[in-house]
Amino acid sequence: MSIKENNLSVYNTLVGKKETFIPVVEDHVGMYVCGPTVYSNVHLGNARTFISFDMIYRYLQHLGYKVRYVRNITDAGHLEDDSDDGEDKISKKARLEKLEPMQIVQHYTVDFHNVLRLFNNLPPDIEPTATGHIVEQIKMARTILDKGLAYEVDGSIYFDVEKYNKDNNYGELSGRNIEELQSNTRTLDGQKDKKSPQDFALWKKASSSHLQHWESPWGEGFPGWHLECSVMSTKYLGEQFDIHGGGMDLKFPHHECEIAQNKAANGKDPVKYWLHTNMLTLNGKRMSKSTGNTLNPDELFSGDTPLLDKGFHPSAVRFFMMQAHYRSMLDFSNDALLASEKGYQRLMNGIALLSSLEAKKESTFDVDTWLKKCYTAMDDDFNTPILISHLFDAIKIANQISDNKASLTKQDLDLFVNSLNSFVFEILGLEDVIVDNNSDKLSGVVDMLIQMRKDARDNKNWALSDEIRDKLKEVGIQLKDGKEGTTFSVN
Amino acid sequence: MSIKENNLSVYNTLVGKKETFIPVVEDHVGMYVCGPTVYSNVHLGNARTFISFDMIYRYLQHLGYKVRYVRNITDAGHLEDDSDDGEDKISKKARLEKLEPMQIVQHYTVDFHNVLRLFNNLPPDIEPTATGHIVEQIKMARTILDKGLAYEVDGSIYFDVEKYNKDNNYGELSGRNIEELQSNTRTLDGQKDKKSPQDFALWKKASSSHLQHWESPWGEGFPGWHLECSVMSTKYLGEQFDIHGGGMDLKFPHHECEIAQNKAANGKDPVKYWLHTNMLTLNGKRMSKSTGNTLNPDELFSGDTPLLDKGFHPSAVRFFMMQAHYRSMLDFSNDALLASEKGYQRLMNGIALLSSLEAKKESTFDVDTWLKKCYTAMDDDFNTPILISHLFDAIKIANQISDNKASLTKQDLDLFVNSLNSFVFEILGLEDVIVDNNSDKLSGVVDMLIQMRKDARDNKNWALSDEIRDKLKEVGIQLKDGKEGTTFSVN
Repeated sequence: MSIKENNLSVYNTLVGKKETFIPVVEDHVGMYVCGPTVYSNVHLGNARTFISFDMIYRYLQHLGYKVRYVRNITDAGHLEDDSDDGEDKISKKARLEKLEPMQIVQHYTVDFHNVLRLFNNLPPDIEPTATGHIVEQIKMARTILDKGLAYEVDGSIYFDVEKYNKDNNYGELSGRNIEELQSNTRTLDGQKDKKSPQDFALWKKASSSHLQHWESPWGEGFPGWHLECSVMSTKYLGEQFDIHGGGMDLKFPHHECEIAQNKAANGKDPVKYWLHTNMLTLNGKRMSKSTGNTLNPDELFSGDTPLLDKGFHPSAVRFFMMQAHYRSMLDFSNDALLASEKGYQRLMNGIALLSSLEAKKESTFDVDTWLKKCYTAMDDDFNTPILISHLFDAIKIANQISDNKASLTKQDLDLFVNSLNSFVFEILGLEDVIVDNNSDKLSGVVDMLIQMRKDARDNKNWALSDEIRDKLKEVGIQLKDGKEGTTFSVN
Repeated sequence: MSIKENNLSVYNTLVGKKETFIPVVEDHVGMYVCGPTVYSNVHLGNARTFISFDMIYRYLQHLGYKVRYVRNITDAGHLEDDSDDGEDKISKKARLEKLEPMQIVQHYTVDFHNVLRLFNNLPPDIEPTATGHIVEQIKMARTILDKGLAYEVDGSIYFDVEKYNKDNNYGELSGRNIEELQSNTRTLDGQKDKKSPQDFALWKKASSSHLQHWESPWGEGFPGWHLECSVMSTKYLGEQFDIHGGGMDLKFPHHECEIAQNKAANGKDPVKYWLHTNMLTLNGKRMSKSTGNTLNPDELFSGDTPLLDKGFHPSAVRFFMMQAHYRSMLDFSNDALLASEKGYQRLMNGIALLSSLEAKKESTFDVDTWLKKCYTAMDDDFNTPILISHLFDAIKIANQISDNKASLTKQDLDLFVNSLNSFVFEILGLEDVIVDNNSDKLSGVVDMLIQMRKDARDNKNWALSDEIRDKLKEVGIQLKDGKEGTTFSVN
């Protein structure tokens, strides 16, 4: 399989269908994914988005592309309700907790990185921050202003959507049209500065209570939320790049505004393929803190929630996510997770079994055809559920070989083992871990020996009793007889 | 113990002696530590500095202070040889590896965080970056320029050391004096812009080949290395704060320049207590890549180096570091690490033993006095080696109690256990892990059962043989008899 074949097709939200993936620069891929606003713990829906793009990043690399993956951290300028007039999300949290905004940023950035590390995500190649690109954001706002597609009102700069729409199509990604937007937008008090309600801020004047603000040609202020992504994607991937990703809730207004800003500033369509991930539900319903129908990654791992019987290993959760296509809704539930965990364990056991099998003189199974099917699934817009069904077919074959009902030559067996490993570990990003909850096997085995020793003593078989104690001591396990029975310690 | 007692004294490099620690704002501590320049993997000497300040951060919090700990990431502007004319360290690496500078930054920031996480360091409260504070750095350069203590030459801004020194003492931290500096400084080609060789850059004009640059009132350029720390400490800790830390190699010129910048801009002494950590050696010699006398954290953990017999758990390495005072030289060697690892294991075993002991009616050991000694050690400029000697005294007592040669009442035992745990885990930041290399106890025990089963079969004791197999299966361990003997798999 070579990237030269160009078999990969991706669903491009911009055109509403699958397209053959042809990068801007041969053999190279530039990919930008909107990262989190770090004012609260990462939620499971966001985690799913980042895990999906991690799988995409891994597969593109597997195909041989040189990928530059940029995922930002929003640490300033994201207002409540994604509006131009709510309170800044990070400033609000800082005010409520009486902390400096950058303490909030640090706390939730650390949490975000920890959760993604547990899910075995690779770090992106560049992880830029909004506060790290103030100079560049001021510059792009000025450029758009100079081109006549933005206007200044009292220290704030707004993008002029109506003017932009004369020569461009505002709404090309989300399918919304400007007349509709104008009639549907509530006119809020704070928006009186704007010429038209659908205009959006490139730069906002900071009120005296706003905690994060910087000097600009228009006075003290802060960048609009949409601007950072336009600036950072252009800076690190160029004016035109291959893939822009994010959750589907970001399509409008965020991604629509990004396109408008980039076209206004650079005169070019910035993104070739827009990829959007779908949402999560929990027990068939939207997650919501107020109704208690909510689950965060920590609760999922620990099982410390009334919604789950037990905790799940992050890699088992990742497997569960991969069993759905990234563009499908995914419903979390205790039963679905338990079922998926069993499948995950079956997969891991099968891989272990496969690597212990012996080659024979003949192959009764066509590994090449199987492998082609796996690539066909992944090349079809990263269809991981179909891929996983082929992986389970492989496990069936492994069991047949083990039972002498099938066989593979050395060459086929090697290809089979290597391919399976690379799909499971390298591309899906799963880890080879034992996920059942009886993980404390050692206690189980030692308890069993303590019982055998007790039986031996009851039968006055002192030799066996002493042997068990002495041999355990040799491997570093000390038995201690007490009133309550025998306990052990590990030295 | 309460922070109100103000028993803590710290060695203040600025005055060259220990002083009672009295914070600027009661009950609060602002601490700034110079973080890494992220252009290579973190080296062990740097790791020691950050582990030392992690211990200090932990102890200050334990004492009840509300601590704001700021540690920066230098991701731009640090030139080779800490000079004003070498190539930028990150840009150079980016040029050599044909990467965007921020890819270098991301790669080594991830490595840095991973290594410190393995060492069980707490994240700082704020982790600001140089590129995240360009606007603020331009502002401070302009302030110093406006006050007449800097000058512009061809798009660069230099700090005027001689002029500053008229009303201030340049050299107050490092003990160097300006006449000496002037006569000792080589005049380099690139320094022809400067009035005097000891002047240093606040802002540098970017040459056409310089990869990281920003707009400024003086044209495209980048901030001087020293400036970021002055800007970020002021922004997050105020114009005067309590503790500034770093490796002793940063005393001059970096910290000296920071003081000069802060005083020039704000007219105040910025830092009350300057704390500096000492260097590492390896087998008695300076570490050096060219001679092969070098050890990085990965090699230390894995043992994958000719200099070590085996790898060491990060927590055992941390313990080893804590056995030296942060202001002492510390020599790494295979033998010293092995000896320290044994001590660490003895400590962990002692803690386990202590928590299993029973209280008696009388106390034969004065826990209060012991506890006072522990605090006295830590209050004496964080004297961890003395603290550790007291912790080993505690382990001796635990063994005596276990052997019925000493006793403690319930109240004393509780205090003893809680205090020991808090010094070991909370303050020294150690983890309760088994560090010997026979960690695979499970294999040992199961192999022992496999041997017992073989003996049983040899003796035609089929009942015992079956019992062992079946009971192992119950705890999830599957035996498999083959030509090569019996193996097992964990389900």
